[in-house]
Amino acid sequence: MVATKTNPGNYFEDFKIGQILDHATPRTITEGDVSLYTALYGSRFALQSADSFALNCGLEAAPIDNLLVFHIIFGKTVPDISLNAVANLGYADVRFETSVFPGDTVQATSEIIGLKENSNGKTGVVYVRSTGTNQMGAVVLEYVRWVMVHKKDIMAPAPETVVPVLPERVDPARFMLPHGLDFSGYNTTLAGSPHYFEDYEIGEKIDHVDGMTIEEAEHMMATRLYQNTAKVHFNQHQMQEDRFGRRLIYGGHIISLARALTFNGLGNAQLIAAINGGSHTAPTFAGHTIYAWSVILEKAEIPNHQDAGALRVRTLATKDMPCEAFPDKLPDGKRNSAVILDFDYWAILPKKTIEV
Amino acid sequence: MVATKTNPGNYFEDFKIGQILDHATPRTITEGDVSLYTALYGSRFALQSADSFALNCGLEAAPIDNLLVFHIIFGKTVPDISLNAVANLGYADVRFETSVFPGDTVQATSEIIGLKENSNGKTGVVYVRSTGTNQMGAVVLEYVRWVMVHKKDIMAPAPETVVPVLPERVDPARFMLPHGLDFSGYNTTLAGSPHYFEDYEIGEKIDHVDGMTIEEAEHMMATRLYQNTAKVHFNQHQMQEDRFGRRLIYGGHIISLARALTFNGLGNAQLIAAINGGSHTAPTFAGHTIYAWSVILEKAEIPNHQDAGALRVRTLATKDMPCEAFPDKLPDGKRNSAVILDFDYWAILPKKTIEV
Amino acid sequence: MVATKTNPGNYFEDFKIGQILDHATPRTITEGDVSLYTALYGSRFALQSADSFALNCGLEAAPIDNLLVFHIIFGKTVPDISLNAVANLGYADVRFETSVFPGDTVQATSEIIGLKENSNGKTGVVYVRSTGTNQMGAVVLEYVRWVMVHKKDIMAPAPETVVPVLPERVDPARFMLPHGLDFSGYNTTLAGSPHYFEDYEIGEKIDHVDGMTIEEAEHMMATRLYQNTAKVHFNQHQMQEDRFGRRLIYGGHIISLARALTFNGLGNAQLIAAINGGSHTAPTFAGHTIYAWSVILEKAEIPNHQDAGALRVRTLATKDMPCEAFPDKLPDGKRNSAVILDFDYWAILPKKTIEV
Repeated sequence: MVATKTNPGNYFEDFKIGQILDHATPRTITEGDVSLYTALYGSRFALQSADSFALNCGLEAAPIDNLLVFHIIFGKTVPDISLNAVANLGYADVRFETSVFPGDTVQATSEIIGLKENSNGKTGVVYVRSTGTNQMGAVVLEYVRWVMVHKKDIMAPAPETVVPVLPERVDPARFMLPHGLDFSGYNTTLAGSPHYFEDYEIGEKIDHVDGMTIEEAEHMMATRLYQNTAKVHFNQHQMQEDRFGRRLIYGGHIISLARALTFNGLGNAQLIAAINGGSHTAPTFAGHTIYAWSVILEKAEIPNHQDAGALRVRTLATKDMPCEAFPDKLPDGKRNSAVILDFDYWAILPKKTIEV
Repeated sequence: MVATKTNPGNYFEDFKIGQILDHATPRTITEGDVSLYTALYGSRFALQSADSFALNCGLEAAPIDNLLVFHIIFGKTVPDISLNAVANLGYADVRFETSVFPGDTVQATSEIIGLKENSNGKTGVVYVRSTGTNQMGAVVLEYVRWVMVHKKDIMAPAPETVVPVLPERVDPARFMLPHGLDFSGYNTTLAGSPHYFEDYEIGEKIDHVDGMTIEEAEHMMATRLYQNTAKVHFNQHQMQEDRFGRRLIYGGHIISLARALTFNGLGNAQLIAAINGGSHTAPTFAGHTIYAWSVILEKAEIPNHQDAGALRVRTLATKDMPCEAFPDKLPDGKRNSAVILDFDYWAILPKKTIEV
Repeated sequence: MVATKTNPGNYFEDFKIGQILDHATPRTITEGDVSLYTALYGSRFALQSADSFALNCGLEAAPIDNLLVFHIIFGKTVPDISLNAVANLGYADVRFETSVFPGDTVQATSEIIGLKENSNGKTGVVYVRSTGTNQMGAVVLEYVRWVMVHKKDIMAPAPETVVPVLPERVDPARFMLPHGLDFSGYNTTLAGSPHYFEDYEIGEKIDHVDGMTIEEAEHMMATRLYQNTAKVHFNQHQMQEDRFGRRLIYGGHIISLARALTFNGLGNAQLIAAINGGSHTAPTFAGHTIYAWSVILEKAEIPNHQDAGALRVRTLATKDMPCEAFPDKLPDGKRNSAVILDFDYWAILPKKTIEV
């Protein structure tokens, strides 16, 4: 007797507009996760590294890195949203809200907000807004992603096409910074960078210089820490039959690695308040060395925060290519094949001159 | 001057019936261990993942995974019991008692309960009952294992043969479930599986589908986390002279990996209450991809727990072989060489219909 | 527009005698770090492993391993002191003071105490005394290291030569043992070794027997955990152009591995109170198997501690060479090329006969 007790995942025709999916596996985030995150990426942003620095910035303790929160919430959505995915196409309107501290427990819910069958009749794009909440029900994270999903039955009728209107970038008026955040006594020496919000200019490019090589054990430990069980990251026996012959590295691992590299040049960018969008533009495998560079796209005031400003940053990560030449588009308009990540986000920095 | 301060371990003739061995290195188990365990195996059972889920099941917090407790207690017995072992032959009557929570400290004691010299006069089998206790002296784990150990002096006389009678399986009347465990408000959505105790049938087979490749860094970090210092797991310089030429992976690493894989099909099997027996049927090395399947051997009521039932599960793990064909014995009666683990245990699941 | 926001590090001519450098990135050390440290090295010293054992030794809880404290403080000094280093030449007068417990936050400051330009005019030696403090301002660690640093401008004038006088070994009168430390109820069974302070003799040599192979993922995770971002440890893309073609392993990783191996023979050496000096005598790469042996150099009483004694130990670590022959100097006076570490420190052990 053969049972069907394993999770088949959802196919394109299983999703309906307005459908709510409550995701499994609530997760208590602890100091143990923080240590592993440090060991995996080597991040040195002081706000997440030291309770003392966080207290001096008005917080009760060092908060959990927002990207760690993102990866854990994202992982929860995989079994319901993207188990039968062809590709993760993009995300937008990613906003971090209530801060997460060690001991908090998070869980996730998603709503289907868009559906568009592809002309081949075999796949379709699902737009989903996912929400992470803590044990008090407070929202810690909201974001939209869209993903191309297989149909199980290609004869299943196409749904009415609904494509949500998504913001090109998150409006700073919508930022929710950590409760109590106050940079008025900010210590740039302890933070490791003398450069305030005012010191960055729109259009300024920064080569983050350092490179970091990825090992199989590292990206797999990271991805399991996030309880993200997408098969392509873990199963070499299966992947060796795939076109690359290798395990694919979870895109979020590259984001966290790139973020850690940006410390060298953006050391006071203590928080990511929002992510405007991002593309994983080429696959990455163990053995690749990751480099990164950034460009400042925009500078913004933050309502009710005179002591902090927001830089809209575009960070590009490359594989096996240092970034002193800021690799991006090639002369023919195509993207440089060494570029693996194009990431657009809002970072929060202290201001030098605090307007009272 | 050369000292002999290093631990020579015990040889077969050193063991006596009734002998008590208090093992070294008490160990405080923390949230850091929980995070590493998640990173190493990717387990998603909700009871161990989230304080909120555990509270809803009547517990004070998410308990430490029973297998993590097993590995740590097992590791403490290695320097006294199996440093001079030829082979770990089996274990039985493994019962988890008082739950372990982060911050608890465990230590271990063993009693020699059986001895049988082999006919070659060079080795013998030692049967040992090991007990793990917490800082209050409460028993957290009891189990029997038997191991073949070298004699140091082949002229040493054979002891009287004593072979203990061991239960073929743990009687559910002996289960000690976590204090306060109550599945009456169980949430299958958060748990990630709709299948209750009643939904499984004796003889039912489940292919757990997913595969996980093991790296050297992972199994060594796991085995060191358990402070298990058996040399075969760590020393490539020495093992390259061995018949396999490779470091052997600790059998417990395979058990935990297989248990994590069973989530896909047995997602509500929140606890392992007891282990009836297990065999590591073939060696496993880094680079192998582990798959698993299970068969339900027996279903049992649990005294004083109307809201939970016990499934006796046999889980087999394979290397580099998916399990849709449920690989087990070959037509000639021999075991399929891809099978590396045959594990028989009692798992606790919520009941759908709670008898009041 | 190209910015120069990344850290250029200091060059030889940037350092001045008496200069104080406050280092970046304060760090809260947690139970998560302790678990990772155990997973990376497999240490079994009971004082750091179990709160219960530490309580029985008069402490409030298991303290953080002093070497973990050293690595974290050392890592903070790298961006200011050794980013442009040619080589780390040595360290001396390393004294651990106030114990660190989970939840404490440490930060680091350095003073330049010596400068000596090399005759080639291209490099110079910088002597620096670094101090780690906790969130209360108490000193947790002090040490001196000297490092050869590039000049940026070879025309920069040489500074007046100042070479500090450094102690050949730390005087036991200067030890600061953990507050409340009391070995009068010491349990050698739980500690895992029957050998007290009195059982060791000056000149005694101990082969620690066991070997441990290092993987790339392990040393990189360790070094990132310490937020030490020296490039040579992480960037294979760059290092493959180097003379070795490999990532170099952080010397501190070898120290911690050697210390863990010494448990087998020095199991009651619960604390390192001070480090007298150390040399990393050959580079180590992933794939090497590390062995260790020790010789007792000196025995000392500790003021105000009748229940403990100090062994001055010299531990040598080797790569791919077991240590039963105690590899050290070769007949021609040169060092055996398999020796990678020569480490001289004071270890604290309980006394058998407590003088009242």
